[in-house]
Amino acid sequence: MRSRGLVQFIAPMKIAVVAPSCTLKPEAAEAVKAIAAARGDAELAIHPQCFLFDGHFAGPDEARLAALREVMADESVDAIWFARGGYGSNRIAEAAAADLPPAAMSKAYLGYSDSGFLLAAFDKAGLEVAHGPMVQDVVREGGEAAVHRALDWLVRRDAAALEPGLKRGGRAMAFNLTVLSNLLGTAIEPDFSGAELLIEDVAEHEYRIDRAMFHVTGSSALRSAASLRMGRMSEIPDNDPAFGSDAESIIRDWCRRSGIVFAGHADIGHDAANRVVSFKYLSN
Amino acid sequence: MRSRGLVQFIAPMKIAVVAPSCTLKPEAAEAVKAIAAARGDAELAIHPQCFLFDGHFAGPDEARLAALREVMADESVDAIWFARGGYGSNRIAEAAAADLPPAAMSKAYLGYSDSGFLLAAFDKAGLEVAHGPMVQDVVREGGEAAVHRALDWLVRRDAAALEPGLKRGGRAMAFNLTVLSNLLGTAIEPDFSGAELLIEDVAEHEYRIDRAMFHVTGSSALRSAASLRMGRMSEIPDNDPAFGSDAESIIRDWCRRSGIVFAGHADIGHDAANRVVSFKYLSN
Repeated sequence: MRSRGLVQFIAPMKIAVVAPSCTLKPEAAEAVKAIAAARGDAELAIHPQCFLFDGHFAGPDEARLAALREVMADESVDAIWFARGGYGSNRIAEAAAADLPPAAMSKAYLGYSDSGFLLAAFDKAGLEVAHGPMVQDVVREGGEAAVHRALDWLVRRDAAALEPGLKRGGRAMAFNLTVLSNLLGTAIEPDFSGAELLIEDVAEHEYRIDRAMFHVTGSSALRSAASLRMGRMSEIPDNDPAFGSDAESIIRDWCRRSGIVFAGHADIGHDAANRVVSFKYLSN
Repeated sequence: MRSRGLVQFIAPMKIAVVAPSCTLKPEAAEAVKAIAAARGDAELAIHPQCFLFDGHFAGPDEARLAALREVMADESVDAIWFARGGYGSNRIAEAAAADLPPAAMSKAYLGYSDSGFLLAAFDKAGLEVAHGPMVQDVVREGGEAAVHRALDWLVRRDAAALEPGLKRGGRAMAFNLTVLSNLLGTAIEPDFSGAELLIEDVAEHEYRIDRAMFHVTGSSALRSAASLRMGRMSEIPDNDPAFGSDAESIIRDWCRRSGIVFAGHADIGHDAANRVVSFKYLSN
C-alpha cells in the first residue's frame, strides 16, 4: 500500500485471471495477488471459476468457456492471464474465438503449455497473444520472478521480459511441442507463415518428442515458418533402452529432413526462467 | 514335419518378417517359426535385421528401410509381416512407399500399433494392407491364437480372422489412435473418405485419449470417414484427479462434436484377441 499516493494518478491495469484448463491452487492465487498489490501497477481479478473442480478440469466446459467469454467481453479488463495449464483449453478454444465481442479485440492474452490451444485460436482470430508465465508458476522455485516478468509484459510491454533472441520487425510464435502437434489440422491452427517458431516441452519421452517432431515437421503449413528454435525440453523420462539420441539431436534431425531452418536455442520452458514470446510483430 | 507329404503339392506361402520399429525377441521368432512349421502352410523368412539394436530401434533407419525394401522387392515373398511395434516405422514410412518395385504391389502387409505408419503409407500407395497381430504377439497370454489368426489371414484370407463387424462391400481402416493422430497432415496420410475407421490404443492417459480425439476429429480429411468404431483402450494409467469421463464417453463425445458417426465397439486392441482389419474392399 506504500505506493498508493502514486498510483491514484495512474490507474492500475486490470488483469482478469481465468482457468481454461485445470484448477488453480488457492495459495498460488493469494501469492500472486500479494505480488501485484505490492507492485501497485496491476489489479488482479481472479475469477471464481479458477477454483472449480470437475474431474480433470477447472469446472465443466460450459463454466470454463463462460468465464473466459465473460472477461473477454468486459470492457474494464485490460488483459487476460491464464491461471495455469494442465489439459483442457482445446475443448473450448474454437468456441472462445468465435463471434468475438469488440472488447475482446483490445486486450492482451498470456499463457503457455496447454493454454497454447487458446494462443493459437486467438492469434488466428487476430487477438494479441503472448506465450509466457502463468499465475500458478508462482509456486515454482524462483516463481516470483516469473510472475514479475509476466506482469512487466502485461502492464507495460517491458522488452526485458521478452525472449532475448526474438527478431525485431518479425513475427514469432511459441508452443509446447505436444500441444502444437495436437492442434495441427484443426479449426484453431494458426498461420505459421514467416514466423519464427519456438517450441518447448516437459515430461515427454524422447520417442514421443521424435514422433511429435515427425508430425509437426510433416505439416506443409508448419513448414512455412521462417525458422524453429528449441526451448527447454525438461523432465524427460528415462527410455528403456536408451533412445540413442537426445532432444536437440532429434529436433535438429527433423528440421534437416523437412527443410525447416533450425535457429538454435530459445529461453522458454516449463520453469521460472520462461521468457515471454509475443506473437505480434515487435517494433524495431 | 508330419505334413511334409501333403505340402509338397501346395507350396507353403513365403512370409517375410522385418522389424521397422523395435527389435524382435529371439524367443518370439522361434515360437512363431515353430507354429508355422507345424501348420505347414507358411514358410517364415525372418530377416536378420529383426534382431539388430540401435538405441530404441531395430537397427538404424537405413538398415530398417533397406531390409523392408529388400523383402518388398523380392518376387519370392508373398507377404510381409511386421515383427512388432514400439516406435520408429514413421521414420522410414515415406521412403518405404516411394518408387515401389513391381514385386511390392502383389504382396499383403500385416501389422498394427506403430506399424500403422506403414499401413497408412502403403494404403496410400495402393498396396494391400491389413491391421492385425504381429510376430511378437506370440509372447502375450493366448498369443498362439493371435499368430494363427494372422497366418490364417495371410495364407488364405480366412474371413474368420476378420473383425466381425466389418461391412462387406465397404472399405475399412484401423489404427492405433496415437499413431493416427501423429500421421495426420504428413506425407503418409491416407484417404479416409467413405471408410469405416476403427481405433484402439494402449497405455495412454484419458487426457491424452481426449486430446488425440480432439485432434483426429478436428481433421477435415478424417471427417470424410463413413463411421468410427472403438476397439479396446487398454492399460489406461490412473489420472490424478479422476478424469471424470471414460474412454468410451470421450470417443462418443468427440464423434458427436465433429459429426462423425460413432458405430459402436470393434474387436481390436493390444491383446491376443486382436482381429484382422483388411483395408481392401471386402467382397460381399
